[in-house]
Amino acid sequence: MFYRFTVGTRATEELVDITDKVSHFVRESLVQNGMCVIYTPHTTAAVTINENADPSVRRDILKGLDALNLSKVRFEHGEGNSPAHIKSSLIGCSETVIIRDGRLALGTWQGIFLCEFDGPRTREVSLTIMG
Amino acid sequence: MFYRFTVGTRATEELVDITDKVSHFVRESLVQNGMCVIYTPHTTAAVTINENADPSVRRDILKGLDALNLSKVRFEHGEGNSPAHIKSSLIGCSETVIIRDGRLALGTWQGIFLCEFDGPRTREVSLTIMG
Amino acid sequence: MFYRFTVGTRATEELVDITDKVSHFVRESLVQNGMCVIYTPHTTAAVTINENADPSVRRDILKGLDALNLSKVRFEHGEGNSPAHIKSSLIGCSETVIIRDGRLALGTWQGIFLCEFDGPRTREVSLTIMG
Repeated sequence: MFYRFTVGTRATEELVDITDKVSHFVRESLVQNGMCVIYTPHTTAAVTINENADPSVRRDILKGLDALNLSKVRFEHGEGNSPAHIKSSLIGCSETVIIRDGRLALGTWQGIFLCEFDGPRTREVSLTIMG
Repeated sequence: MFYRFTVGTRATEELVDITDKVSHFVRESLVQNGMCVIYTPHTTAAVTINENADPSVRRDILKGLDALNLSKVRFEHGEGNSPAHIKSSLIGCSETVIIRDGRLALGTWQGIFLCEFDGPRTREVSLTIMG
Repeated sequence: MFYRFTVGTRATEELVDITDKVSHFVRESLVQNGMCVIYTPHTTAAVTINENADPSVRRDILKGLDALNLSKVRFEHGEGNSPAHIKSSLIGCSETVIIRDGRLALGTWQGIFLCEFDGPRTREVSLTIMG
């Protein structure tokens, strides 16, 4: 089963909680046991799983990535967004989550986030669900 | 096929070799060719694959992550464990390993590690095996 | 379906575009819809997805990883390649890409790269394709 949706980001850097959207499609797929691949087809965005209870965690993740001081490096790429490309490769453009009893087997504190590193833009997210 | 086990970590930060446990469940699944997703449902832990021959490598990985100087950043999140959350997103909470001829197709030097970044705690690891 | 190929790297650090090779095996598999796991069984190499239009991006990714200053840390591991092990865990030794209509569902600017962090060497890449 294959699904696709878009996310409109509103800042240069932002973590957008997409857990509810992914859960919706997992239910729609009727897959009871299997896995869901969450994939974003961009090179300056990423997908991660982290705490979605306290919204300060997602801001701290961006702060932590900024502390890597990538903005101080003299890069070659003409568009000036090399730090965003590197963050995309460090975090990764996909996550795989297990499906159990028709639901994403996320931990109590886990949510799924689209990471925007070069926005604001309209970003695509693809899901493949196999059972 | 779905399996779950727990790992008791014994330090604030530690890489625990879980290769034998994962291999055990791969054999039990009787899957000959397919893949195994190793997933930890926590936001201050992670799963990685790296060298398990020389134990100094796993300590060096923790040292390398500490060299990112995340502990010097002034974070928002009240629990004081934001560096652990960031390390979790940098390493990632899952790995996917290919299964060939009934065995994990790991490289000669590769082992699977649960990464504890905010321990000691009891951590859960979930496996989904598809063939 | 399982496939394997080798990549000869030519420098200490290098990102090698393997998109065409992976696409070739996806076509050969005749899988129309599913997923492809790209896996490298090494502990000082990795697999990432990033821009393959401007070749300066892949050099900038290596520059960005060098800016993490891992080469300044006093590591334990006797072989002197601990920074390569850490980069391997930060980027990760596999990627999962969705297959749609018999093709890799990569974004317009996305390519798949083998990351060499301790070369030059002959590196192996394994693919598992499920549909």
